[in-house]
Amino acid sequence: MESAIPLHLETQRTRHKRVPDDYQPPYPSFVARYKPAVNRVVMAYLGVQYRGVAPAATDALIEIAELFAAENGPSHWDRAHYVDQFGHENVVSVGYWDDVARFDAWFAPAREAWTGSQRDDIGTFIEVLRPIVARHETLFSSPDRPEGVAAIAADMSGEVQEHAYWGGMRDRIPLSQTDAMTPGGAPELIRAGARLRVVAHDNLCLIRSGQDWSDTETSERKLYLDDVEPVLRQGMDFLRDDGLGIGCYAHRYMRMLAADGSVSEKSYGQSWWKSLAALERWAESHPTHLKIFGAAMKYLSTLGPSAKLRLYHEVTVAAADEQFFEYLNCHPKTGMLAAV
Amino acid sequence: MESAIPLHLETQRTRHKRVPDDYQPPYPSFVARYKPAVNRVVMAYLGVQYRGVAPAATDALIEIAELFAAENGPSHWDRAHYVDQFGHENVVSVGYWDDVARFDAWFAPAREAWTGSQRDDIGTFIEVLRPIVARHETLFSSPDRPEGVAAIAADMSGEVQEHAYWGGMRDRIPLSQTDAMTPGGAPELIRAGARLRVVAHDNLCLIRSGQDWSDTETSERKLYLDDVEPVLRQGMDFLRDDGLGIGCYAHRYMRMLAADGSVSEKSYGQSWWKSLAALERWAESHPTHLKIFGAAMKYLSTLGPSAKLRLYHEVTVAAADEQFFEYLNCHPKTGMLAAV
Repeated sequence: MESAIPLHLETQRTRHKRVPDDYQPPYPSFVARYKPAVNRVVMAYLGVQYRGVAPAATDALIEIAELFAAENGPSHWDRAHYVDQFGHENVVSVGYWDDVARFDAWFAPAREAWTGSQRDDIGTFIEVLRPIVARHETLFSSPDRPEGVAAIAADMSGEVQEHAYWGGMRDRIPLSQTDAMTPGGAPELIRAGARLRVVAHDNLCLIRSGQDWSDTETSERKLYLDDVEPVLRQGMDFLRDDGLGIGCYAHRYMRMLAADGSVSEKSYGQSWWKSLAALERWAESHPTHLKIFGAAMKYLSTLGPSAKLRLYHEVTVAAADEQFFEYLNCHPKTGMLAAV
Repeated sequence: MESAIPLHLETQRTRHKRVPDDYQPPYPSFVARYKPAVNRVVMAYLGVQYRGVAPAATDALIEIAELFAAENGPSHWDRAHYVDQFGHENVVSVGYWDDVARFDAWFAPAREAWTGSQRDDIGTFIEVLRPIVARHETLFSSPDRPEGVAAIAADMSGEVQEHAYWGGMRDRIPLSQTDAMTPGGAPELIRAGARLRVVAHDNLCLIRSGQDWSDTETSERKLYLDDVEPVLRQGMDFLRDDGLGIGCYAHRYMRMLAADGSVSEKSYGQSWWKSLAALERWAESHPTHLKIFGAAMKYLSTLGPSAKLRLYHEVTVAAADEQFFEYLNCHPKTGMLAAV
């Protein structure tokens, strides 16, 4: 059993973790381990938004793939699709870097290409976080298939202690040893012609929380699709439609796309929150999420690592200067535009 | 909005509470307020155990009532009944004091009377905690009907902040400002002839958690009896039958008795735990309790103080020298005997 906080980020605590030192989680979970030399990771969400048939969208998706394949592009990227509350199609391509200098070299021209000039019939957006690794955590139910930011990590941990209890998410973030990560200020809109930027605030929180049912068979597959997914979707719908009142600025529940553009048997929810505390409160008290948590506890406690359903998430609490949001020709409820 | 921790027990924190200062609970709850001069409360559980028809049990119950009515007796007492896992009937009469000197004067002769000599066909037991008030908290969904220890308090608070989130129980205990309340040692059995005493350990935890459906009508009554109570019972059965493995030494799910001995429309669960942390982990992760919590959150967020179902609890984390357990002629799974 190891701590989710890597050794080199352990500090003298001024804040306690929520469980005693002898706490034993009821099932194993794992976290991504970066090389100690990695002090920041970068996650860049590049979106295309359109309605109905938009040939420009297809072109734009090819263009992103080319941008990502260019020099200094991400070490890993993936793509997902969803239809939002207004019936717009959205395709979000996410790139991950573990070297900020490389990202910076890549970003300036990529940004100009992506949101520099308006395209026919489609909107484009960029949402970037570049947190120090102390402001970031991951969690995986199985150690052998990294997703998202974990795909750029050197390795997976062994079994970690800080999970399967409310507060584990916070306790896995190294900064929680000394900092409450309280949000500061309110998001503001900055207009530069048609380009809309949002400047959020200190300790904005991002979660990407995914599920992969591609390996499940018969009864386990049926359990996920019939019993778990509909409840999950209810929770996701709540966040999308009514999240703002509880501090969820924006939420997307997306289906991942395979390399050939076909839908895969993986999905994830991605959302922007006013604070880690707001995310904690929702997760702990909303009936749909309690139901999901209860089902997962029961399920994973029984099947453990032999479960074929794979669950993971990554959470970042970003400082004000670790964020970038820009939207061009998107509807006003797109991403962080919904917060201003 | 006030803190559950009374002003005169606020201290310089070395441990943070789990929610930010601007946290707003989704529905109101209230706590008992003792006079600041009260530095300890005493709760004495006096039990009678028997099988089938036992005339001696009836006599014993009259005797307790007389003991409680004697000089220096409790300011408040109540009585409840349950049938345990071995089919034994148990009647537990609980007295509450806010003056330790009075309790001490009362207790020596009462103890002799109660567990000093064996009676035909019945077992008797005494379980006492006498915590400083900093080791103790209460919570009520309505401020106008105190139960248990709250019946000896001077007053109820206004709406308090520290509730409706996991960790609220700990945050309401004043000692949590500076102390993790880690358990120390293992319970030991001490034999003095037929009298069996259990000496437990530092930071043993007691919870009494009750529900009162006497005022509910039609649909609310049906909701409680058909949907809530069966799930509650499942959780209670789990603690009784399988609690030991997760740190629950003993559990009783009891129906309260009216003054005339008839069953009332009130019940409570009472259990002894290795630690507050063990109680927290069960409450937060056991599917039955998650379901109860989710239902209560939804229910109370909707109905608020107009709900007719009343919920309350009291929790104590007792120092080693604040405890007393004695059993005479009881079966070996009675109360804290189950822990040794």
